[in-house]
Amino acid sequence: MLSRISIKYFSRTYKASLNKDTIPSSIIRSEYAVRGAIAEKALKMQRQMEDEVKFPFEKIIQLNIGNPQNLGQKPISFNREVLASCLTNDIEGSRMIFSSDAVDRAEYYLSHFKHRAIGAYTDIQGVRCIMREVKSFIEKRDGVNVDENNIFLTNGATEGITFMLNLLIKDENDGIMIPIPQYPMYSALITKFEGTQVPYYLDESKGWGMSFEELERSYAEATDKGINVRSMVVINPGNPTGQVLAQEDLNRVIQFAHDKQIFLLADEVYQRNIYVDKEFCSVRKAIKELGSPYDNDVELASFHSLSKGLHGECGLRGGFLELHNIDSVVNLAIYKFKAVASCGNIIGQIGVGLMANPPTKDTVSKEVFDLYQTQEQHIHDGLKYRANLITEKLNSIQGITCNEIEGAMYAFPQIKLPQSYCDLAHQEGLSPDLKYCLEILDKTGIMIVPGSGFGQEEGTYHFRITNLVDSKSEMIKALDRIGEFTSDLMSLYK
Amino acid sequence: MLSRISIKYFSRTYKASLNKDTIPSSIIRSEYAVRGAIAEKALKMQRQMEDEVKFPFEKIIQLNIGNPQNLGQKPISFNREVLASCLTNDIEGSRMIFSSDAVDRAEYYLSHFKHRAIGAYTDIQGVRCIMREVKSFIEKRDGVNVDENNIFLTNGATEGITFMLNLLIKDENDGIMIPIPQYPMYSALITKFEGTQVPYYLDESKGWGMSFEELERSYAEATDKGINVRSMVVINPGNPTGQVLAQEDLNRVIQFAHDKQIFLLADEVYQRNIYVDKEFCSVRKAIKELGSPYDNDVELASFHSLSKGLHGECGLRGGFLELHNIDSVVNLAIYKFKAVASCGNIIGQIGVGLMANPPTKDTVSKEVFDLYQTQEQHIHDGLKYRANLITEKLNSIQGITCNEIEGAMYAFPQIKLPQSYCDLAHQEGLSPDLKYCLEILDKTGIMIVPGSGFGQEEGTYHFRITNLVDSKSEMIKALDRIGEFTSDLMSLYK
Repeated sequence: MLSRISIKYFSRTYKASLNKDTIPSSIIRSEYAVRGAIAEKALKMQRQMEDEVKFPFEKIIQLNIGNPQNLGQKPISFNREVLASCLTNDIEGSRMIFSSDAVDRAEYYLSHFKHRAIGAYTDIQGVRCIMREVKSFIEKRDGVNVDENNIFLTNGATEGITFMLNLLIKDENDGIMIPIPQYPMYSALITKFEGTQVPYYLDESKGWGMSFEELERSYAEATDKGINVRSMVVINPGNPTGQVLAQEDLNRVIQFAHDKQIFLLADEVYQRNIYVDKEFCSVRKAIKELGSPYDNDVELASFHSLSKGLHGECGLRGGFLELHNIDSVVNLAIYKFKAVASCGNIIGQIGVGLMANPPTKDTVSKEVFDLYQTQEQHIHDGLKYRANLITEKLNSIQGITCNEIEGAMYAFPQIKLPQSYCDLAHQEGLSPDLKYCLEILDKTGIMIVPGSGFGQEEGTYHFRITNLVDSKSEMIKALDRIGEFTSDLMSLYK
Repeated sequence: MLSRISIKYFSRTYKASLNKDTIPSSIIRSEYAVRGAIAEKALKMQRQMEDEVKFPFEKIIQLNIGNPQNLGQKPISFNREVLASCLTNDIEGSRMIFSSDAVDRAEYYLSHFKHRAIGAYTDIQGVRCIMREVKSFIEKRDGVNVDENNIFLTNGATEGITFMLNLLIKDENDGIMIPIPQYPMYSALITKFEGTQVPYYLDESKGWGMSFEELERSYAEATDKGINVRSMVVINPGNPTGQVLAQEDLNRVIQFAHDKQIFLLADEVYQRNIYVDKEFCSVRKAIKELGSPYDNDVELASFHSLSKGLHGECGLRGGFLELHNIDSVVNLAIYKFKAVASCGNIIGQIGVGLMANPPTKDTVSKEVFDLYQTQEQHIHDGLKYRANLITEKLNSIQGITCNEIEGAMYAFPQIKLPQSYCDLAHQEGLSPDLKYCLEILDKTGIMIVPGSGFGQEEGTYHFRITNLVDSKSEMIKALDRIGEFTSDLMSLYK
């Protein structure tokens, strides 16, 4: 990391006031594996490649992060036509090059702004007509009634999650239950807000399933240590684990939360990324169908995003947060956070509207609808194909075992690294899985993330890999290179 | 505020876990005047108007917030053509309706993305080619050398300011010097991070000038109380005060910061909004020209934004942060904050590139350049005209005195409210300036913000008003209505 920064010499008598001793220690401690050591090394290599330093591969392949368009996924034409039309000063010009359905949709949004000015700050919670699109989306999906005032449009799901964790953590006695392995944004934010992680382990031997004995164990262990367990995070479909939770699993989570009177956080950003014969069930829906008293009691914040699903518009930064069964102070607090942070960016907001309220047979021409469907189907088919490919290929590599990718965009395979390799890693001050991932990057240009950043059972090693390379042959080549590297490693250290 | 939220009844035995006693108290305490009571009342009125409730005015006029496009300011065509072209999947189509210079510029940006995918996450600090545009912008403006690694592209200036204050405040013993009156985002963030405000008063009788005796007094008073003064905020041009600081003033601020070894935060988002014969000087430039030891020592973070200036693209959420003379841990810490928050939205980032590197005579056709210049000039002329108009009109109202608006987008006039009116306000539990602003909203539909949210000398009352209504006649009418209301008030309570 420090290599990015030119060294600074202050004059002899002067000491920088802001230094490692004066910044909050939580910031020194916080780590964010997905964008950590591997990303830093790759950035350095990228710069060297630009300076024509030679490597034994043509390019760096980012299988480390859920960033579909960076790997060739195309944006959905209808959405981009709407967004481009909203931005231009000449919407009649847009009609010359875009479908009239898209331009009409842009007109719909523009008509909700004074002076048609999408360059203005919106209301703090978001543009009202888009909040209503989100409300209808949830109502249709879950068969519930949604209060639109409990919806906040955010810059990606991350912003909403940040607000909630900030609110749920007063000090280090406050604990947040997170799955292990988990998405490291959670651990980074819990550290930042100086709370305590309360890990519950997913069962790798049962397809990364959730065990309710484990939830009870986790809660009891934390409580015994004097930790006040405030909340539990559910990531469904799982990141990095790719499992899809059944409604009965969710029911038990809800009953658990009710029993302990804790707040549920439902990270459901991968709800459209399912590749097996299972249906996504939101926590909101499961609560509704469980009925009283859960439906009146269990406190819930759910998150969704424009970055994942089939649109993959990470760069636009759009998402939403929906609150359910909350004390009014919670809405007010989120409102205050958002007021200071300012409204979500408008292109992300409109993107969320398009995700929540996609074109249908009844609202657009057959041609536009067919293209939309074809594009989404193509993306889904590619994700599914590569999900299967990854599981199959990885399981054929000696030393690697990989659960089926049921959903999301990742596999989290286990690798049984030889003891002598682990010893060497420890001598070098590296966790063995980090050493493995760094060496793969070095030798093949492929970026994958060590399991240690996500959490894993003591003594086991994993990595996270995405199913996002749009080119089939490139995905196969990448998996083959990981296979070759691993085989060589296994022979060398056996 | 609570009126927005439907009342929630939990079942009798259940108590919401997240409630006023369990959320961090700093969130309960934090207030954000610009989007506070006035904004809430107006939102309620707006809804009533939609339900055809009658008011003694046609519409609500938002003079409370620096939101130019909401009041009729048009976006710059060139910029919007570039942004729209970047978003479309069919850039050749764009050539049919946009200037080829704009499409070429879009091509330039797209060529810096793998697969031309602007829908991908960018690097954490931002798109490298845009960071370089910002670097050149600062170098040309200030005659300095900028390390591009010290630039972060952010969602507006707010995000960068939030990072810096988070970093500068460990606990309540850490003090941040802020001007009074100040932009209330500062006080809200200092409260949120549980630090201490250290106010230094601007001198209203000297055109809201800065007094160095006052800086010393403020610092000494805080230090005497055991506060560790960590940083000083300079807002130039001033918000809400509209003054433009001379380079000599900045020199003394820099010497003060060096003497006390404190970190400078320079909020320079209004650098292009100057309406008098003064030139903007950045803190960065003043440091450079002061020379050694200041140029090697004084720690600085400077902020700029796409929301203000002549583009006024608040909804796009773009801005940047530049660091100077920092310990490397500061860059790393900001990098970590930004990694967890995710990259700035791409449309905001490209908007910042367009602001930093506008079209010139040498880079675009005469036609495109002339249109760009004409549009910017029109916006500047309007802002300047209305700045003068506001000062003149307000000073003609009995009981109101208003300093010249040298820059930014606001006047902060003083109003001498009659004692009996103040007594009545206190009986109602309102600060007198809030009562005044609420009543103006009630009677005229005009939104202005009470001075108490910005801070003001004890016993004085002010309000903030923007110079942003694009229509001349509407601006005049609004000022006349404020005048009539105030005259009536003065007669009634004299």
